[in-house]
Amino acid sequence: TPGQMDKPLISRHLVDSDGSLAQVPSEAPKVGILGSGDFARSLATRLVGAGFSVVVGSRNPKRTAGLFPSSAQVTFQEEAVSSPEIIFVAMFREHYPSLCALREQLAGKILVDMSNPTERELHEHCQSNAEYLASLFPACPVVKAFNVISAWTMQHGPRDGNRQVAICSDQPEAKRAVSEMAHAMGFIPLDMGSLASAREIEAIPLRLLPGWKVPTLLALGLFVCFYAYNFTRDVLQPYVQEGKNRFYKLPVSVVNTTLPCVAYVLLSLVYLPGVLAAALQLQRGTKYQRFPDWLDHWLQHRKQIGLLSFFCAVLHALYSFCLPLRRSHRFDLVNLAVKQVLANKSHYWEEEEVWRMEIYLSLGVLALGVLSLLAVTSLPSIANSLSWREFSFVQSTLGFVALLLCTLHTLTYGWTRAFKESYYKFFLPPTFTLTLLLPCVIILAKGLFLLPCFSRRLAKIRRGWEKDRAVKFMPPTDQVLVEKTSHV
Amino acid sequence: TPGQMDKPLISRHLVDSDGSLAQVPSEAPKVGILGSGDFARSLATRLVGAGFSVVVGSRNPKRTAGLFPSSAQVTFQEEAVSSPEIIFVAMFREHYPSLCALREQLAGKILVDMSNPTERELHEHCQSNAEYLASLFPACPVVKAFNVISAWTMQHGPRDGNRQVAICSDQPEAKRAVSEMAHAMGFIPLDMGSLASAREIEAIPLRLLPGWKVPTLLALGLFVCFYAYNFTRDVLQPYVQEGKNRFYKLPVSVVNTTLPCVAYVLLSLVYLPGVLAAALQLQRGTKYQRFPDWLDHWLQHRKQIGLLSFFCAVLHALYSFCLPLRRSHRFDLVNLAVKQVLANKSHYWEEEEVWRMEIYLSLGVLALGVLSLLAVTSLPSIANSLSWREFSFVQSTLGFVALLLCTLHTLTYGWTRAFKESYYKFFLPPTFTLTLLLPCVIILAKGLFLLPCFSRRLAKIRRGWEKDRAVKFMPPTDQVLVEKTSHV
Amino acid sequence: TPGQMDKPLISRHLVDSDGSLAQVPSEAPKVGILGSGDFARSLATRLVGAGFSVVVGSRNPKRTAGLFPSSAQVTFQEEAVSSPEIIFVAMFREHYPSLCALREQLAGKILVDMSNPTERELHEHCQSNAEYLASLFPACPVVKAFNVISAWTMQHGPRDGNRQVAICSDQPEAKRAVSEMAHAMGFIPLDMGSLASAREIEAIPLRLLPGWKVPTLLALGLFVCFYAYNFTRDVLQPYVQEGKNRFYKLPVSVVNTTLPCVAYVLLSLVYLPGVLAAALQLQRGTKYQRFPDWLDHWLQHRKQIGLLSFFCAVLHALYSFCLPLRRSHRFDLVNLAVKQVLANKSHYWEEEEVWRMEIYLSLGVLALGVLSLLAVTSLPSIANSLSWREFSFVQSTLGFVALLLCTLHTLTYGWTRAFKESYYKFFLPPTFTLTLLLPCVIILAKGLFLLPCFSRRLAKIRRGWEKDRAVKFMPPTDQVLVEKTSHV
Repeated sequence: TPGQMDKPLISRHLVDSDGSLAQVPSEAPKVGILGSGDFARSLATRLVGAGFSVVVGSRNPKRTAGLFPSSAQVTFQEEAVSSPEIIFVAMFREHYPSLCALREQLAGKILVDMSNPTERELHEHCQSNAEYLASLFPACPVVKAFNVISAWTMQHGPRDGNRQVAICSDQPEAKRAVSEMAHAMGFIPLDMGSLASAREIEAIPLRLLPGWKVPTLLALGLFVCFYAYNFTRDVLQPYVQEGKNRFYKLPVSVVNTTLPCVAYVLLSLVYLPGVLAAALQLQRGTKYQRFPDWLDHWLQHRKQIGLLSFFCAVLHALYSFCLPLRRSHRFDLVNLAVKQVLANKSHYWEEEEVWRMEIYLSLGVLALGVLSLLAVTSLPSIANSLSWREFSFVQSTLGFVALLLCTLHTLTYGWTRAFKESYYKFFLPPTFTLTLLLPCVIILAKGLFLLPCFSRRLAKIRRGWEKDRAVKFMPPTDQVLVEKTSHV
Repeated sequence: TPGQMDKPLISRHLVDSDGSLAQVPSEAPKVGILGSGDFARSLATRLVGAGFSVVVGSRNPKRTAGLFPSSAQVTFQEEAVSSPEIIFVAMFREHYPSLCALREQLAGKILVDMSNPTERELHEHCQSNAEYLASLFPACPVVKAFNVISAWTMQHGPRDGNRQVAICSDQPEAKRAVSEMAHAMGFIPLDMGSLASAREIEAIPLRLLPGWKVPTLLALGLFVCFYAYNFTRDVLQPYVQEGKNRFYKLPVSVVNTTLPCVAYVLLSLVYLPGVLAAALQLQRGTKYQRFPDWLDHWLQHRKQIGLLSFFCAVLHALYSFCLPLRRSHRFDLVNLAVKQVLANKSHYWEEEEVWRMEIYLSLGVLALGVLSLLAVTSLPSIANSLSWREFSFVQSTLGFVALLLCTLHTLTYGWTRAFKESYYKFFLPPTFTLTLLLPCVIILAKGLFLLPCFSRRLAKIRRGWEKDRAVKFMPPTDQVLVEKTSHV
Repeated sequence: TPGQMDKPLISRHLVDSDGSLAQVPSEAPKVGILGSGDFARSLATRLVGAGFSVVVGSRNPKRTAGLFPSSAQVTFQEEAVSSPEIIFVAMFREHYPSLCALREQLAGKILVDMSNPTERELHEHCQSNAEYLASLFPACPVVKAFNVISAWTMQHGPRDGNRQVAICSDQPEAKRAVSEMAHAMGFIPLDMGSLASAREIEAIPLRLLPGWKVPTLLALGLFVCFYAYNFTRDVLQPYVQEGKNRFYKLPVSVVNTTLPCVAYVLLSLVYLPGVLAAALQLQRGTKYQRFPDWLDHWLQHRKQIGLLSFFCAVLHALYSFCLPLRRSHRFDLVNLAVKQVLANKSHYWEEEEVWRMEIYLSLGVLALGVLSLLAVTSLPSIANSLSWREFSFVQSTLGFVALLLCTLHTLTYGWTRAFKESYYKFFLPPTFTLTLLLPCVIILAKGLFLLPCFSRRLAKIRRGWEKDRAVKFMPPTDQVLVEKTSHV
C-alpha cells in the first residue's frame, strides 16, 4: 500500500490521527560497512547509537568481530552487502580493486566513499578517491561524505564546531539519502554538488589553519624588521659610537621594545581596512560594487590579526614584568645607589619622570585589559552567544577604545623624547614615533566619518541607497557589509 | 492518493517496509525570496544548501542574478511568487507597499517577515513590521522569523549559541511550516506565540548585553566610591595635614588600592544572595513561595558580578606587577639605601614585615588562581560540558574557597594596622577594614548553615518538604532552586 | 486510511506531490506529566515550546496551575493520564507507590522515569528507580530518560555540551518514541540499551569530574614531594648547617621553586605515553593489538595532565612576578647597596650572571606563551572548530616546541650549577637536574623516531600494515590511533 512505502528514514509512525502517539512495530533501517579499521569501528558505534542496524563485511569476520559493538553483525563481505541499500566503504584507496569481486551484489546500491588521501596521494592521482571508486563501480551511485569527520568525532558524537559534513554525488537521490543519515547521526549535511567536488572535499582535512598563514607571516615580518631597527638603535649605536657593550639587551630588552611595536601596528591594521572600505563606499556612492580582492581578504582576516596583536601585547606585558627580575636591573639599581652616596645626595626625585611612568604604566594595563575583553569575545562559544549588535559593539567600539588607549600609552612613553636630538641615534627616529603614524591616521579618519555629512551618507549607502540611480531595484535588509566593516 | 500527500517536508521516502532504503524520485520543495540584498543572498545560499529549490523575485533579474548562488533561479517578482507556497520577504519595511501589486498572486501563501527595525523605527511605528505586512496582505498567513539571525550566520550556518530562531504567527499551520524549514536549515525554532509578539521579537537584535548593565554600573559605582575614599586617605590627608605632595599616586597606586576593594566586595555580592535565599527558605519553611523580585534578579546576575570581580582582580594583579617598574619605586629604593648608609646601618631586616608580605603575596596568587578556574568554567563551552553537580562543585565550593583566600589575603594585608591609630587618617578607617565586613558575615552565615539543625531542615525543604502542611501534593524532582542557590 | 496513520511524530504533511508546501490542519501530539516540582515545570515549558500539547496531573490542580506555562493544561491525575500515550513521571522515588491507584488508566502507556537518586539512595537500593517503577507497573513500557538534564537546561533549551540524553528501555518501540521526543525538544538521544542500564544512567549526574581525579592527585603528589625536597635543600640545610633562619622563604620562594618542577614533570608526562605507544607499536609490528590498560588510561588523560601543567606554569609566572614585591627583596637590595658602599666599589657587574638571567627569563616567557596557545586550543569550542590535522599540529608540534623551550629554560637556570659542589646540599642534587631526566629521554626518543628506519615503519604500521602477516584482511581508513598518539 502507499502508506507502507511512506515511512521516512528516521521518523516513526507514532502519531495517530488524533495527535496522540501509537506504537507501530518496525525494524531499524539496515546499513552495511566494508572495512574493519578504526574509522569503520567508530562509524559502526555511531550508526548503532543512531538506531541503525549495522552489518560489517570483513574478510576475516571471526578475528574482527570482537572489535565492533556487540549489536553490529560482523560477517563475510558477500553476505554483508546483500541486504542493505547503503554501503559505507571505510577502506584505503589502494584496496578498492579488491572489492571488484562484489560488483554484482553491489549493483544499484549506494556506495559512500569516506576515505582521505595523504598530501602526496592528493597530488599523485589525477582522480579523487570517490571518482576512482565510481569508475570501478559504474552501476552504483557513489557519494563522497564523512571524510571530514575524524574517527574520534565519529565515535563520540559531533560537537558544535565539527557538525558539518560536506557531501557530494552525481545522483541527487543517493545524496539525499546519505544526507538524511548524516542528519540522523547528529551531523549537519552540507551539499557540495556533483562528484566532481570530491577532490575539493578530500583536500579539506589536509588544510592547516589557512586563515592564519598570512597574518602570522605578517606578524613575523614586522617582528624581524622592528627587532633589526631596535637592535641598530639600542645595541649597535652605543657599541659603534660609544664603545659600550649592550649586547646583553638582546634576549629581553630589545624583544620587549619590539613586541609592543608589532602589537600596535597589527592592531591598527585591524581597523585600517574598515576605514578604507568606508572611504571606498563614500567615493563610489554605493555598496553594490565589490571591494577589490585584497581589501576583501584583509577584511576577512581581521580577527586573526587582532588576536596576534593581543598575543604580542600579552608577551610585552610578561617581558615587562620580568624586567625587575633581571640581574642587570639589580646591578644598575645598586650602582645607582652607590653613585648617589658618592655624589652626597641624600634625596633624589624627578617629578616629571615619575608622572610619565605612572601614567604610562596605568594606560598600558588598561589597554591590555580592554584587549583581553576583545580576545575573550572572539572565542567561538562567546561570539556565538552574542547578537550581532553586541558583537559589533564589543569589537568595534571597545576595539577602538583599545586603539586609543594604546596610542596614549605610546604617546606617554614618547613624552618629550620625540623632539630631543639625543634620541635620534644614527639619525634614526625612536621606534615609537614610527609606529604612531598609522594609528593616528586611522583615528583621524574615524573622527572624520563621525561628521554628520559623512556619517549620514554612509548610513544611507549601507541601507541600499545609491548615488547614481534612483533606487531602481528593491533595496533589501542587509547586514553583511555593515558587519564586514565593523568586526575585528 | 493519501500516500502521496503524506510526504513530510524534509524526510524522504527511502525506507521500504522491511526497513531497507529505497530510492523514490522526488523534487526539492520550492521556496520564494523577495529581495536581493545581502540577507536575501545569504538566505538563498542557506536554503539551497539545505536542499530547497529557491526562486528569487527581483525587479531587475538580469542585474541581480550574478549575486545569487547559481542553483537559485532569479526571475521577475510576478513569476517568482507564482509557484512556491512559502515566500521570504527580505526587504526593508519602507518597501513593503511596493509589493501590493502582487497581492493577488500572493493570496493564501505564507509570507515570512525577516526584517529588523532600527532603534528609531522601533519607537516611531506603533505597529511591528510583521503586523504591518499582515495588514497589507490580509489574505496571507504572515510569520515573523529569522530576524534574530545575522546575514553572516545565515550564510555560514548556525553555531551553537545562535541556533535559536524566535518565530511567531497567528496561523499555527504557517508557523509550523516555517519552524520545519528553520529546523531543516539547522536552526532551533522557538515558538513565541501569536503575531502580537513580533514587536518583542523585533526588539531582540537591538538588545545590548542586558544582563551586564546593572553589574557593570555596580562595579563602576563601587570603583568611584572607593577611589574617592582612598584618594582622601592616601593623597589628600598627607597634602592637607603634612604638606606632602603625593599626587603622583593617582594613576597607579590609588587605582591599585581601589581595584582589590571592588573585586572583593563584588565577590562577596556573588555569595550574599545565596545566603539570603537560604535564610528566607529556612524562615518560611517552604521553597514553594517565590523570592522577592530583587532577590531573584540578584540571583540571576551572579555570573556577571563574579566575572567583573575576576576582571578587577586581574587588573589588580597587573597593577601590582607594575609597581616595581615605576620610577618612583626606583627613587624610593635608592633613597632608602642612601639613608641607611648615612645612618651607618650595614644590615637592616624586619622579620615580621617580611613574613607579612610573603604570606600576603602567596595568598593573593592562590586566590587569583582559584578565581581564574571559576572564570574559565563560566565560559559557555565549558559550563555546558559540565554536569550540574560538577558546575555546582566548581562554582559553589571552589568559589567559597576563593572568598576565603581573598579574606585571608585582606587580613594579612591588614595585619596589625587595623588597630593602630596612625592608620586612621582623617578618622577614616583603612579601606580593607571596610571591605572585610560583608565577606565575614557571609562566611559566618555559611558556617551556621552547616550546623546539622539548619542543614537538615534546608535539605528537607529543598526536597519539597513544607513546614505548614503535611505534604499534600506531590513533591517533585527539583533542581532549579538548589541550582539557583549555589551557582555563581 | 493508511495515509492518516502515517504521520510522523514531528514532521507535518506540508509537501504536496509536486514538492510545494500545503497546509494540512493537525493537532499537536499530547503528552502527560505527573508531578509539579521545578523539573516538571521546566519540562512543561520545553514541551510546549517544542510544539507538544501538555497535560499536567496534580493532586491539587488549583494550587499548582499558576506555576505552569499557561498553554499547559493542569488537571487531576486521573484525568491527565487518560488521553496521552506518553506520561513523564517527574516525582521522587518515594512517591511512586502513590501512583498505583492509576494502574488501570496507565496500562499500556509509556512511562518516562526522569528521577535522580542521591548518592545515598544509589547505594541503598538494589533496584534502580526506573526498574522499581517498572516493577510497580508491569503493564507499562518504562523508559529511563532525561535524568542527566538539569531543570535549568530543560527550561532554557540545550547548549552544545549537554545535548546528549541517555535513554534505555526494554521496549524498543517505547524507547524510539521517547528518542523522537528528545530529538524534537532539541536533545540528542543516546541509546544505552535495556532497562538494566538505568542504574548506570542514574549514576551519571553524580559523577564529579572523573577525568580529573588521577591527574589532580598526581599533581598534588608531585607538589608535596618537590616541596619537601626544596624545603630540605633551601631552608633546612642552611638552618642546620649554617644556623641561618630562612623560614620566611616557605610561602613564596620555596613554592616558586616547586611549581616549575611540577609543571615541567607534568608536561613531560603528557608526551611520555605517546613515545611509549610508538615504541610498543614498533616492537609488536602491528597496531591491531590493544595497549595495556594503564597506557590507554594515560593516553586518555593527557589533556588534563597538560592543563594542570599549564596551571602550575602560570602560578610559577605569577609567583615570579611577585618576587620584587616582597619586603625581603627590598631589604636584600638595600643591604647589598650598603655593602657595596662599605666595600668601596663604585661599579659592580657580572656579565655571565647577567646573560644567564636574560636568556632564562626570555625562554620562560616564550615557553609560557606557547603553553598558553596549547591551553586555548584545548577549550572545547576551539578544539571543535579545528580539523583533526590542525588540532594535531597544535597539540603535537607546538606542544613539543613548548617542551623544548621549557627544557632550555631549565638548562639556563641550571647553567654551571649542576656541576658545582656547593649546590649539592646534604648531598642532594639541585631540583632542576632531577626534573631534566624525563624530558631529555622523551626528546631523545622523539629524535630517534624521526630517523627514516623508524618513521617509515611507524607510518606503515599506522596505515594497517602488520609485521607477522601479509595483509590478510582489509586495512581500513584509520585515525583513532594516530590521534591517540599525538594529542596532548
